[in-house]
Amino acid sequence: MPAFTLEELARQFDLDVRGNPQQQVSGLATLSAAGPGDLGFLANAAYARQLGDCRAGALILSEKMVDRWSGNALVTANPYAAWARIAAFMQPRSTVPTGIHKTAWVDPDAEVDPSAAIGPQCSIAAGCRIDAGAEIGAGCVVEAGATIGRQARLVGRVFIGEQVRIGERVLIHPGAVIGADGFGLALDQGQWLKVPQMGSVQIGNDCEIGANTTIDRGAIEDTVLEEDVRLDNQVQIAHNVHIGAHTAIAGCVGIAGSTRIGRYCMIAGACGIGGHLTICDQVIVTAMSTVLDSIEEPGEYGSGIPARAHARWKRILVRLGQLDDWARRLRKLENK
Amino acid sequence: MPAFTLEELARQFDLDVRGNPQQQVSGLATLSAAGPGDLGFLANAAYARQLGDCRAGALILSEKMVDRWSGNALVTANPYAAWARIAAFMQPRSTVPTGIHKTAWVDPDAEVDPSAAIGPQCSIAAGCRIDAGAEIGAGCVVEAGATIGRQARLVGRVFIGEQVRIGERVLIHPGAVIGADGFGLALDQGQWLKVPQMGSVQIGNDCEIGANTTIDRGAIEDTVLEEDVRLDNQVQIAHNVHIGAHTAIAGCVGIAGSTRIGRYCMIAGACGIGGHLTICDQVIVTAMSTVLDSIEEPGEYGSGIPARAHARWKRILVRLGQLDDWARRLRKLENK
Amino acid sequence: MPAFTLEELARQFDLDVRGNPQQQVSGLATLSAAGPGDLGFLANAAYARQLGDCRAGALILSEKMVDRWSGNALVTANPYAAWARIAAFMQPRSTVPTGIHKTAWVDPDAEVDPSAAIGPQCSIAAGCRIDAGAEIGAGCVVEAGATIGRQARLVGRVFIGEQVRIGERVLIHPGAVIGADGFGLALDQGQWLKVPQMGSVQIGNDCEIGANTTIDRGAIEDTVLEEDVRLDNQVQIAHNVHIGAHTAIAGCVGIAGSTRIGRYCMIAGACGIGGHLTICDQVIVTAMSTVLDSIEEPGEYGSGIPARAHARWKRILVRLGQLDDWARRLRKLENK
Repeated sequence: MPAFTLEELARQFDLDVRGNPQQQVSGLATLSAAGPGDLGFLANAAYARQLGDCRAGALILSEKMVDRWSGNALVTANPYAAWARIAAFMQPRSTVPTGIHKTAWVDPDAEVDPSAAIGPQCSIAAGCRIDAGAEIGAGCVVEAGATIGRQARLVGRVFIGEQVRIGERVLIHPGAVIGADGFGLALDQGQWLKVPQMGSVQIGNDCEIGANTTIDRGAIEDTVLEEDVRLDNQVQIAHNVHIGAHTAIAGCVGIAGSTRIGRYCMIAGACGIGGHLTICDQVIVTAMSTVLDSIEEPGEYGSGIPARAHARWKRILVRLGQLDDWARRLRKLENK
Repeated sequence: MPAFTLEELARQFDLDVRGNPQQQVSGLATLSAAGPGDLGFLANAAYARQLGDCRAGALILSEKMVDRWSGNALVTANPYAAWARIAAFMQPRSTVPTGIHKTAWVDPDAEVDPSAAIGPQCSIAAGCRIDAGAEIGAGCVVEAGATIGRQARLVGRVFIGEQVRIGERVLIHPGAVIGADGFGLALDQGQWLKVPQMGSVQIGNDCEIGANTTIDRGAIEDTVLEEDVRLDNQVQIAHNVHIGAHTAIAGCVGIAGSTRIGRYCMIAGACGIGGHLTICDQVIVTAMSTVLDSIEEPGEYGSGIPARAHARWKRILVRLGQLDDWARRLRKLENK
Repeated sequence: MPAFTLEELARQFDLDVRGNPQQQVSGLATLSAAGPGDLGFLANAAYARQLGDCRAGALILSEKMVDRWSGNALVTANPYAAWARIAAFMQPRSTVPTGIHKTAWVDPDAEVDPSAAIGPQCSIAAGCRIDAGAEIGAGCVVEAGATIGRQARLVGRVFIGEQVRIGERVLIHPGAVIGADGFGLALDQGQWLKVPQMGSVQIGNDCEIGANTTIDRGAIEDTVLEEDVRLDNQVQIAHNVHIGAHTAIAGCVGIAGSTRIGRYCMIAGACGIGGHLTICDQVIVTAMSTVLDSIEEPGEYGSGIPARAHARWKRILVRLGQLDDWARRLRKLENK
């Protein structure tokens, strides 16, 4: 990694230097691992107790924390955001070489911008449009008529179904499947009849979609992610779900069909959200909760139960089964 | 999309016309989006209030609803099934061209019917049999000795393990893995020893398997899905599970090893079903429930807890921890 | 399958024969399906009632069970481990042929041991090292700088991210994604900013990783699995998780970022484990539990609720909502 002075970084990212502006940093590290040539950061006050032993060449931190650190610092109101920008600058990620890899299959009727990159073993079907600067990593499948926006990146082994529209700068991690059929079935004389899923999927600009996440195409109209929606790994989005801008959803969450999630929501890991609901903006759902009703007020909601020692939990389960009986007994006592 | 008169559709799908039989429809749309050239449908009474504003050229609906709609109609006892059939007819899905794509690898010892289609970047191993009319989409891997039945369709990037047998007209969505090893381990002197998984997987005719769903091979005997089983996305089926015909399982459900599920069951999203259980026919399990005991009576079962405002839920959690104490106090009061 | 006498098997696997040492077995079967030429086993006492009807040529069982079985036997303290070894010996799995398949892409700057095997449609990027005896099945993607240890096996369609290190004899099932970016986001002026994920993943020797399981790369330092960790299908391991040796995790479990799990833990199916926790050695978590606090004592923990008939469960849910009120009423009664 090349070295940078604090002065250079401060100028480029609009930060204040405290200490020696000529101090050079050439590595990025955690508070506990950083050495004299490394830059670290402190964004979560819970780690402030590590400042005493920290040997970093410099730290990114907030005005509030700077007095607890005796070394060089880059000071900013949002240390985590500054860290994100500087890390991306100092250690740029590797990219797929521009052009079409010789083992990739690109249908003659697909349109690939000359500045786009198609990696090994890809399949790009007829009618696709791969826009300028887009990167399609190894083993991706992009089906007929799909469009991949400018600077979007499919890391590898991603599946994009027919007619799906991926916005600009969207980042999709391996194993994700965008645009499989929704789960639509009609029972007819004792047999299931498949209901054609004729809608598509629209992924807005700046979305990120985690590894092995699935987003189904709509039944008639489209499944939609607005811009800057962030999905972690193994999230399941059913047909015709609509997710508002800037909403972030952690791993293993499932959202059933036709549900509408607002903007700036945060859904913690492994939650299940029922179908045909409306969740308003700025709702937080805590881990492993089940949402079965629409939510009309911003705020925090949950139904997860923290684990206890099994013997204690088993007694609680027994008591749960007795609650109906208790209600009767309590009322009886009150009536006396 | 070509245009059809209501008379033509009624004749072909055995429906009754109400209104103008010469009315043409050339599009398919929702109640709220349909215009004068579109066909829509009403299957769920909850949407009946949209009939007033609906501008569709015609609607598919039931005898019971037809009086609430003043426009043209195709009348049937099962509007959703009629919609499924007409939609598939009016907007046929695209297909993989017959024959073997030039970038696909087909082992010389594999047997591919001339009417089957093998898409780009596939790998078909020795001893496979791909039957008439089967479609293997881009990037699929079919391992040694597997068989893919007539008209079956692997949409793309599907993995089929060795010796797995896929029935006729089975539809498998991208990312599904059928026939990975079951999770079999023996602890031996402080180390895990892998227990070979020598069984296979049998998928009956007309099954549908969702994106990124996994179905493990059996330990000794096979894991079995009977005919017309429908699995949504990200379902996990462990080794030696047996699922009865016409059972439908929603997204993110996990079923542990050797459990037997009956026919015509419906398992809602994100349920967990324990191992070595027997669930009888026609059982419904509600969303995010945990099934840990066998079920011998048809009916509806559940243990999911709907989320509440977090502050209220936290108080309930505190109360849960006190139940044991309450039991004692309640008894003491009663004894007085 | 070739035939073996009990005497041969006993000598090779250090077992005791009871009955006829010249008895030949050429098949492997369950207690209920085994015929006179088959070897079976009994490891779980719950199946002992099947011994009466069993027609197996021989059974592997423990000293304690041998008197309940009148046929030939291979006797050992750990029948399940003996079964695992004998099954692997009698029915060896098929292997990918050594060398590089002609449809695979191997970058000229990758290093592939001549005894390694690269299957059809693989992509092996620059700077990778594939060690002696490793098998990379069809459709795998191994990104730049990753290393695959001796005798490791990627079954097929596995994704290994940049710089990821896979140990010796590791077994990775189809659809697994090792080394996608962790879910790191900084909110900056109402937009999410991606935090670069610069760490990697280290998978220790003898680990097994299930189908469609995801293990994210660390934010700064690495995500780590020590040796002999066993993960089932659809497990999600977030960035910077550390899992101790010999821990086994069943299907559909999710573990949030930076959590440390001890050695010899067993996590049952579909559990969710929160972030930044420490779970000590030898902890068992029961199915579908939510772990939100660190655990400092070995033992069994849980919070899963077994499903009941829905009507009864709905009444319990109503009572749950009343608990706060009950607390007040109970106290009032006590005060009288």
